Amino acid sequence: MKKFVNDPENFVDEMLDGIYRAHPEVTHAGDDLRCFVRSKQVPGKVGLVTGGGSGHLPLFLGYVGENMLDGAGVGGVFQSPSSEQILEVTRHVDQGAGVLYLYGNYTGDLMNFDMAGELADLEGIKTATVVGRDDVASSVPGEEHKRRGVAGIFFLYKAAGAAAARMMPLEEVARIAEKASARTRTIGVALSPCIVPEVGKPGFEIGENEMEIGMGIHGEPGISRDALAPADEVVDRMIERILAEQDYTQDKEVAVLVNGLGATPLEELYILYRRTAQRLEAAGAQIRHTFIGEFATSMEMAGASISVLQLDSELEPLIAAGGDTPFFKKLAN
Amino acid sequence: MKKFVNDPENFVDEMLDGIYRAHPEVTHAGDDLRCFVRSKQVPGKVGLVTGGGSGHLPLFLGYVGENMLDGAGVGGVFQSPSSEQILEVTRHVDQGAGVLYLYGNYTGDLMNFDMAGELADLEGIKTATVVGRDDVASSVPGEEHKRRGVAGIFFLYKAAGAAAARMMPLEEVARIAEKASARTRTIGVALSPCIVPEVGKPGFEIGENEMEIGMGIHGEPGISRDALAPADEVVDRMIERILAEQDYTQDKEVAVLVNGLGATPLEELYILYRRTAQRLEAAGAQIRHTFIGEFATSMEMAGASISVLQLDSELEPLIAAGGDTPFFKKLAN
Repeated sequence: MKKFVNDPENFVDEMLDGIYRAHPEVTHAGDDLRCFVRSKQVPGKVGLVTGGGSGHLPLFLGYVGENMLDGAGVGGVFQSPSSEQILEVTRHVDQGAGVLYLYGNYTGDLMNFDMAGELADLEGIKTATVVGRDDVASSVPGEEHKRRGVAGIFFLYKAAGAAAARMMPLEEVARIAEKASARTRTIGVALSPCIVPEVGKPGFEIGENEMEIGMGIHGEPGISRDALAPADEVVDRMIERILAEQDYTQDKEVAVLVNGLGATPLEELYILYRRTAQRLEAAGAQIRHTFIGEFATSMEMAGASISVLQLDSELEPLIAAGGDTPFFKKLAN
Repeated sequence: MKKFVNDPENFVDEMLDGIYRAHPEVTHAGDDLRCFVRSKQVPGKVGLVTGGGSGHLPLFLGYVGENMLDGAGVGGVFQSPSSEQILEVTRHVDQGAGVLYLYGNYTGDLMNFDMAGELADLEGIKTATVVGRDDVASSVPGEEHKRRGVAGIFFLYKAAGAAAARMMPLEEVARIAEKASARTRTIGVALSPCIVPEVGKPGFEIGENEMEIGMGIHGEPGISRDALAPADEVVDRMIERILAEQDYTQDKEVAVLVNGLGATPLEELYILYRRTAQRLEAAGAQIRHTFIGEFATSMEMAGASISVLQLDSELEPLIAAGGDTPFFKKLAN
């Protein structure tokens, strides 16, 4: 196992200790390092809380900061945070305007966030929930509600974060997050597996010349395993799935996220972006915002994902807004 | 070769095409995509030009932008840009105040930048040169001037970039870059090799349970190859080399850069940072600025480097200043 770890059991807490040491703008609510919150909350603002397993940095906690999220429940590697941790974060970030839960569509997260929301309700904290389900490769037709949440959740954070920072009420922030969710599509491709520290070996195998389109960020099975093709052909096969679900006749403007899963060089992400841009433009889209880099990883997995958010006049300025977290900085444009 | 490439010969130019499509704030001088410059130059400002081989993103071109650099000569993967390309960039960025060359201490780069500088001189453009030589593992005692430039050059860009943005004259900007260079130390550790696309296979081998401390960002030999140790022990062995060359009795404040070489998860960089911070603080240093992530990579190499810049009252505000490039954003603090 080629990893920088001490005792694998301490992987998450040592990582968190490193983050808190480096970035005083974030801290933990109470004694539990895994209850991750902004050091200063904004009075009267809707609180935005996410959460999920570790091993996906900058997802999830990396989006806690100005114009973005207010807290995150931090689970073990590829494990959900507990309902108690989510509740503790909820209590901390609630500033009287309620709390929106924004997370990916996974069974453990659904269960624990729902439970936390019920407990918060008993304490008089109003919550609402929007889940990311952007992975087009993770459902059969007609079961789109079962799709997994992957890198495209970044757009939900960005839109809802900017909306909440403008002091919109909970119902509005939730409506905007839901709209961003409905308009976001992602598809991924994996070239190599990743290693969970406590397991110590790869979670699955991919042959030396194979790729798997549609694989999930925890190694969930994709839709096809084929010989690795040239970069442009890989993009062509992926983007078809997104183009089939978006029509740029009316709303032409899009935001594009080309995300590295961990080990893929940034150079290669730009080669993928090049073809993605060619194909989107050929389909009538106008690329208004680009995000290229590592936004949602799977430890040291080699691979990438492409996400497209179809903008409208409400979402565009929210995506254009600035953001400032230890892991994501954007100047307003 | 598990890479997203089309024809390996087009790797660099397709990457550049992707970058120019995504980021209109950068462009190329003349027809050559590899003459990388800011789209808008600042009249009267000293121009800062870097360059080097591709395969290290965000190094080198990724630091071209506001409060940072003005242009970069882009070489093939792990190859120097040509003197003609550097000269073309020099002509473009010169705004009458002269141009500072800032690059890493490698034979090909030295030769081509020197030649470009001589040709620029014949055209009436004043140039000066500061090279990064921060890698403490790359020289025997007494030959420190032969050290390679690695991730620590980021601090030279940051300090000189902010100085030039304050409209300081060429001599002053060069003096500040030289001071940052003299006060920066880096050491790296590699866990796995990387693959140059045109070669198609790893440039060297490291055993399944081995690490190499001091390996360069092109796979240059390090100072010791040992069994992979726990993360804290790896840091301990690395940081000793830096502590031996810095004394925090007078100037206590430092900026720390924990850099991922490509395939190492961000989680692990924070585990390395944690121990780095413990050791620096135990040695009497006060950590004023932290930079953690991928700043100078070696394609998909697994590994990391630690850089420490010992600050003084002149350098501190320059490192604190904001920066805005497509690949690096920092809000002023």
